[in-house]
Amino acid sequence: MEGIIINKLHCTIQIRLAKKNIFFGPGVLKLLKLTGKYESLSAASKSMGMSYSKAYKMIKESEKELGFKLLDRKIGGTNGGGSTLTPECVDFLNLYEKFESETKKNADMMFTKYLNKYI
Amino acid sequence: MEGIIINKLHCTIQIRLAKKNIFFGPGVLKLLKLTGKYESLSAASKSMGMSYSKAYKMIKESEKELGFKLLDRKIGGTNGGGSTLTPECVDFLNLYEKFESETKKNADMMFTKYLNKYI
Repeated sequence: MEGIIINKLHCTIQIRLAKKNIFFGPGVLKLLKLTGKYESLSAASKSMGMSYSKAYKMIKESEKELGFKLLDRKIGGTNGGGSTLTPECVDFLNLYEKFESETKKNADMMFTKYLNKYI
Repeated sequence: MEGIIINKLHCTIQIRLAKKNIFFGPGVLKLLKLTGKYESLSAASKSMGMSYSKAYKMIKESEKELGFKLLDRKIGGTNGGGSTLTPECVDFLNLYEKFESETKKNADMMFTKYLNKYI
C-alpha cells in the first residue's frame, strides 16, 4: 500500500530483524532488491537518495549479522563492474518476503477480527 | 521481551494504528494503561518522562481519530482530581491488546516457519 493514503482506520506493521540490535528492515530490503535489479549497489543507493557509503555500511552490517555474503562484486565489464546478489542472498530474500507478507496478511486479519467495529 | 537483550536472530514487530496519519502505537498505549493505573494523566506522563502537554495532545489526537473519549476528568476529591479511562477506552484497550498479542505471536510463528535456518 506504499504511497497510497488511506483515510479509514487501519493498522501499519513494521517488521525488522535483530540480534543484539536491529539490523535489517524495509530499507536494506529495498536496497538489496534494487541492487539485484540494477546489478549495482551504487545505482541502487542513488535511486534511494542514499549515499554509497551508507548503503555499503548497511550491507556489511547485515552480512555480519546474518553470517553470509549478500553481494558479489563484479570486476570490469562494459559498465566497469557492479554488484550482484549472491545465491544465499536470493534465497534469504525469497524467504524473508514470504515471512513478511504472511505476517502482514495475518495482522490485517487480526485487525478485522478485533478492531473492525472502530472502522 | 522489553528490556531483555536477545543475541540470537529474531524479529521485532512494531504495530500502529493509522487513518491518514499514524496516531496510535506503543507510546499512547502505555500512557493510557499508566493513566488507568494511577488515575492521573499527569502522573502517567511523568512516569514516562513525557511532558503533560505532549501527553494531553497524544490523547486528544487519538480521541479525534477514534471518534470517542478515552479519558474522563475527575473533578476535586482528596487528590484534587485526576483522570480515569472511559468504559469505551477500557473496551478498546482490551481488544487492541488481543489484536497486538495475536499479531506478534503469529509473527514469531512465521519467523520460525521461514527463517529458522538463519538462527
